[in-house]
Amino acid sequence: MAMSIVDAHTKSYNVKEVGSFHVGGRQVSLTGLSIKELQSAAVGPRTLDPNGEYEVEQMYVQYIKLAMTKARYPLLMWHGAGLTGVTWETKPDGNPGWQQYFLKAGYDVYVSDAVERGRSSWARYPEIFKSEPVFWTKKRAWEMFRIGPDGSYSSSKKKLAYEDTQFPLESFDQFCKQSVAYWYGNDEAINSAYYQLIQKVGPCVLVAHSQGVRFSVQAAVNAPKKIKGLILIEGGGGGSVDFVAMDLSKIKDIPVLIVYGDHWKESSWVKNHAGTEQLSSAMKEKGVKVDWLDLPAIEIKGNSHMLMMDRNSDQIAGLIQDWLKKKGMMK
Amino acid sequence: MAMSIVDAHTKSYNVKEVGSFHVGGRQVSLTGLSIKELQSAAVGPRTLDPNGEYEVEQMYVQYIKLAMTKARYPLLMWHGAGLTGVTWETKPDGNPGWQQYFLKAGYDVYVSDAVERGRSSWARYPEIFKSEPVFWTKKRAWEMFRIGPDGSYSSSKKKLAYEDTQFPLESFDQFCKQSVAYWYGNDEAINSAYYQLIQKVGPCVLVAHSQGVRFSVQAAVNAPKKIKGLILIEGGGGGSVDFVAMDLSKIKDIPVLIVYGDHWKESSWVKNHAGTEQLSSAMKEKGVKVDWLDLPAIEIKGNSHMLMMDRNSDQIAGLIQDWLKKKGMMK
Repeated sequence: MAMSIVDAHTKSYNVKEVGSFHVGGRQVSLTGLSIKELQSAAVGPRTLDPNGEYEVEQMYVQYIKLAMTKARYPLLMWHGAGLTGVTWETKPDGNPGWQQYFLKAGYDVYVSDAVERGRSSWARYPEIFKSEPVFWTKKRAWEMFRIGPDGSYSSSKKKLAYEDTQFPLESFDQFCKQSVAYWYGNDEAINSAYYQLIQKVGPCVLVAHSQGVRFSVQAAVNAPKKIKGLILIEGGGGGSVDFVAMDLSKIKDIPVLIVYGDHWKESSWVKNHAGTEQLSSAMKEKGVKVDWLDLPAIEIKGNSHMLMMDRNSDQIAGLIQDWLKKKGMMK
Repeated sequence: MAMSIVDAHTKSYNVKEVGSFHVGGRQVSLTGLSIKELQSAAVGPRTLDPNGEYEVEQMYVQYIKLAMTKARYPLLMWHGAGLTGVTWETKPDGNPGWQQYFLKAGYDVYVSDAVERGRSSWARYPEIFKSEPVFWTKKRAWEMFRIGPDGSYSSSKKKLAYEDTQFPLESFDQFCKQSVAYWYGNDEAINSAYYQLIQKVGPCVLVAHSQGVRFSVQAAVNAPKKIKGLILIEGGGGGSVDFVAMDLSKIKDIPVLIVYGDHWKESSWVKNHAGTEQLSSAMKEKGVKVDWLDLPAIEIKGNSHMLMMDRNSDQIAGLIQDWLKKKGMMK
């Protein structure tokens, strides 16, 4: 299969602006909370009165705009659960990630942190966020991200990864440093912020990973005229529950590419993959043109859930770029 | 006073790489915690076992490297308490901030989020972080950042800012969306991560704001050969407590610029300013060459604590750039 490799050789690119903003969110007011005395190592005791107003549920977005784009639309990159926009930046092994790849390919690139996470900021719980945060252990990351089979993680012995894994195993600790807490109960705020992002940016292509897939399909249904392409990578979320209620006929003019890596059959991902197949069928029924980039089926083996960090991430980006070209996304 | 304005007219600049990494941190292991059942709106009940390993106390750093720098050293920008590296990015009013300014002036720029904050990620408390997080109310931000005098914040009426304020008042809510939780007890981890950042980057100039000033002076004492200039903006921390114990003779070859805005005399900042004066004197006693950019003294009035977000931020950046030129930092 052909691969767009020319871009990887670009030595530099002309940037008009590196910028950022927060979208969405609301003001909340807390009252009746007790005033606390906290100790600061640097400056001694400090009185903390938590009562008052806060801005919450906003989303951080960073963009890099090129002086001259080659693409017709910017790419918006939406990460998965337990992570932030760092997913798309330099890979844990120190090599360039997809943010770099698609800048070099001539796209303006927008990388965001979902509400609650990273630079979007989280809010007090249980007063504002209703439940407690979820932190993933390294074991959970190892298994959920399909670096090795369930039960292969060890804290004391060598971890037994899939033999053909494309994940840079020596960088697993470095990858875990990207992990952030998230909440189960903020979907509404997250969907709202993504919707506002699209309204602000205008016509764009969404590149969504894992949990982000769910939000991106919702965003496309909410703002179908603004979305020019949907790239759904390794959709998670454990089923098609969310998609049934959506009016997928609204997105029938949006080209969709579904991307999946390897070893989902041998793990609990079989359930997520089945959910993605159901989504794919439901979209096709409504007239959506859906293509699959099923990596093992084209002899690209060993990709983990974090395929944008895998050793062959440029190869996969190249295949996505080929699809984008075919769909008329370049000028 | 002369001002470097040429850079602001640059339309674009050639970028070699936008990248990021995490430095520092360590693995911790949690045991004996109870397993919880949480509700996910999207996928139903989920069992959460918090026992296991985590990476904690790492720091996120994003860099933008130019194809051709005009400066001899990169700038490292360190934010203050309750905030992240977003401090240096696009201003709350949507105009370019100092990250842009100094990229256009020809520096490689590194913007980091202190340990605990933003994309650096925070860790479970009280199991890992020992105390509880600190969230600032909008009232506290309004007063602490010297947008208006103590007592002038109102949630229902017009807030009475300093009449000559340079802060874009219409963007105050937008600014508050940048606010993040922080902790009082992690100074050691923060200092360690900053030290490792400097070891990784090599010779550099530090631009530090507020709480970041304390960390930057500590970093300079810890790695004096690597620090080629120290720009200390609006030092906070309530006194010179930390500086007494430091061997400031170690930084005697590092040029230092202290920058302060307006209205500190009329607020609780009088204490922080006094601490900065003490630091300045202590440095001078050890042979450090310290310059002051005391803005009201040169008839630049109304600057808040967040002077890199004020309307005249380019003017202040220009004065800093003049100083950097004078100190031989350009090629």
